Amino acid sequence: MSNPFSNHFFSYPRKEVHMRKKISLLGATGSIGRQTIDIIHSNPEKFELESFSAGMNINKVREIASVHQPRVVSVMRREDAQSLKTEFPSIQFVHGDEGLLEVAAHTNSDVLVNAVIGSVGLTPTMEAIRVGKTIAIANKETLVAAGDIVMAEARKHNVPILPVDSEHSALFQALNGENVKRVNRLILTASGGSFRELTREDLTRVTVEQALAHPNWSMGNKLTIDSATMMNKGLEVIEAHHLFDMPYDKIDVLLHKESIIHSMVEFEDTSVMAQLGSPDMRVPIQYALTYPDRIQMQNAKPLRLEEIGQLHFEKMDFVRFKALALAYSAGKEGGTMPTAMNAANEIAVGLFLKGTIPFIRIEEMIERIMDAHQTIAHPDLQTILETDSLTRKMVYAMVELII
Amino acid sequence: MSNPFSNHFFSYPRKEVHMRKKISLLGATGSIGRQTIDIIHSNPEKFELESFSAGMNINKVREIASVHQPRVVSVMRREDAQSLKTEFPSIQFVHGDEGLLEVAAHTNSDVLVNAVIGSVGLTPTMEAIRVGKTIAIANKETLVAAGDIVMAEARKHNVPILPVDSEHSALFQALNGENVKRVNRLILTASGGSFRELTREDLTRVTVEQALAHPNWSMGNKLTIDSATMMNKGLEVIEAHHLFDMPYDKIDVLLHKESIIHSMVEFEDTSVMAQLGSPDMRVPIQYALTYPDRIQMQNAKPLRLEEIGQLHFEKMDFVRFKALALAYSAGKEGGTMPTAMNAANEIAVGLFLKGTIPFIRIEEMIERIMDAHQTIAHPDLQTILETDSLTRKMVYAMVELII
Repeated sequence: MSNPFSNHFFSYPRKEVHMRKKISLLGATGSIGRQTIDIIHSNPEKFELESFSAGMNINKVREIASVHQPRVVSVMRREDAQSLKTEFPSIQFVHGDEGLLEVAAHTNSDVLVNAVIGSVGLTPTMEAIRVGKTIAIANKETLVAAGDIVMAEARKHNVPILPVDSEHSALFQALNGENVKRVNRLILTASGGSFRELTREDLTRVTVEQALAHPNWSMGNKLTIDSATMMNKGLEVIEAHHLFDMPYDKIDVLLHKESIIHSMVEFEDTSVMAQLGSPDMRVPIQYALTYPDRIQMQNAKPLRLEEIGQLHFEKMDFVRFKALALAYSAGKEGGTMPTAMNAANEIAVGLFLKGTIPFIRIEEMIERIMDAHQTIAHPDLQTILETDSLTRKMVYAMVELII
Repeated sequence: MSNPFSNHFFSYPRKEVHMRKKISLLGATGSIGRQTIDIIHSNPEKFELESFSAGMNINKVREIASVHQPRVVSVMRREDAQSLKTEFPSIQFVHGDEGLLEVAAHTNSDVLVNAVIGSVGLTPTMEAIRVGKTIAIANKETLVAAGDIVMAEARKHNVPILPVDSEHSALFQALNGENVKRVNRLILTASGGSFRELTREDLTRVTVEQALAHPNWSMGNKLTIDSATMMNKGLEVIEAHHLFDMPYDKIDVLLHKESIIHSMVEFEDTSVMAQLGSPDMRVPIQYALTYPDRIQMQNAKPLRLEEIGQLHFEKMDFVRFKALALAYSAGKEGGTMPTAMNAANEIAVGLFLKGTIPFIRIEEMIERIMDAHQTIAHPDLQTILETDSLTRKMVYAMVELII
């Protein structure tokens, strides 16, 4: 899989997709997981579901298992695995953390799609890299919490890490065939989220319902809140740093409320390459599965700029969107700091969604955790997992003090 | 220079620019020529001017010759060549049509930049292809009048034809690393020219001065008028057809008044790749010289979308911009028809610039010539040159009848 011409050009060998790719999928019942299944289902001559994991949505597990007849399925609870075994005798059912490892690394798949939410995807991804599987990554936490370790392992095993996120897929597509040494800036676009028109003063009064109404994309609740705080873009900046080995001062964020330009790359000659499209997560998911080729997208809405008429762009405001400033600062600090920031954000968002804390407190709690965190500069996987777990406990403890 | 992986992926071998490229330049004193010289001058470690041609601007020839000390220089007239010889004894001076051939094909250059205006560039380009030189093409007529022959010759000699025009360079960059079989549409953007806000009724009263005021780009008079009639975009559609071997029903034109997105490619998965930038012709010229790599652009204005604020898009109106419809029709007909159309346009624009015919008559005359033209389906180079010359005479004859 190495490039015969030069290390600096961003390209894997180009071959046409002719064989049927076997896919392992972590998080099959979530939003990205379902859309991945949809793509596999629409292209039976290209893709085959080899194994998948899910949590406790057992009806959905039954549905996928009976349609796709994978070899291995993992669920969260032992009792669910046992009862499914009697229903589907030809499928191997496993469960828990070991089940995730089994699905990710110990089946005969070509690609692992990591579409779980949270740091649970980290260990199985590391294991899949070690056995040489191509990784299609939708799980932010894997790169945010442990980007240095994950990318080092991928380089060591010569394993491609392909982005599934629409912004990183856009950057990846814009870098196709280019010399990465000639990049001036990666420009991540940001819609601004549900509250883009509000001031910080307004933000003190917003409700959970208001926060969950995202203007462009329909997605999970955690992601919708992260878009409203702009922490989502902060996590993406850290991901981009790791995926494309790019220093933070070469990663910019631009407000673009229509979310039509998914991201851009500016090169040294001032040329800017951009990837555009209608909001449809299946496009980047499918691209990760067909790269370096493309295939037709079933039932997709092509982009018609003449119908959209106008695209708007605005300078990012780091005072208004404080969470983004925190993410840059955590990323630049490195070590365990992004892990702590990410864990604090996850818990704080959960507390907001439950009505425990007001919206504006999310970034306040993240900042306090970051102030308190003692960064370990070169953590191993175990230290990262401990930082994650410890930080979560700290946030809960803090919340009891402040509310 | 062949791609070891697949014929369908759009990529030449990627190697870093390390050697100094020797450049032959046809049309050194025109707008593209001067900017090419500027790039060579700014990057003496990358580029060297091996030979160039000019017309009758002998002062400019002196200036370029004394700075760059090329091996061969061609001018239009024998007497100029002779007097220059005494001034620059170390340079070989040639003249006329044979001089163009000498500069294009019979020097030790790696790349021929064809930046002349009109069909005069055709024969030297064919000769340069035959001797295996890479062609960087800014001369529209070469591809419009003789695209089939030129591209067939380039394929035969395995010679890359690299676009210099900003739109085609944008398409070329958007296709980088992609499988060209997966293209849905090439989308050429058009500013709409000086008269984009006027109706056809308004067009009957416009003056030469009004026509020459282009809102975005500063360029030669012929090109500015072609932008106002939209024939420029029509010529570009025909060029794109040849350069990228794309059927006409896969080439669209989109009105985009800011000219920031220089063109786009839509793929089968609905993903759209675009190249953006500030209006600066040096960027596509330099890209053709550094491809597949890029180098820093000296004194360039980087694109700041947050300062531009908005980009606008509008459906193309083929009734309002009739010349574009004529160009599609000529392109689809093929054979000698685009040659005739292009010749008619060149003469008609000249007549408008001299005040002989009103603006709206330009497309009327093109249409009449096309109606009268008997297409020869598979012309050779000689037939194309005769069609070109015969059509020009026909337009002059016609003008005497109608005015």
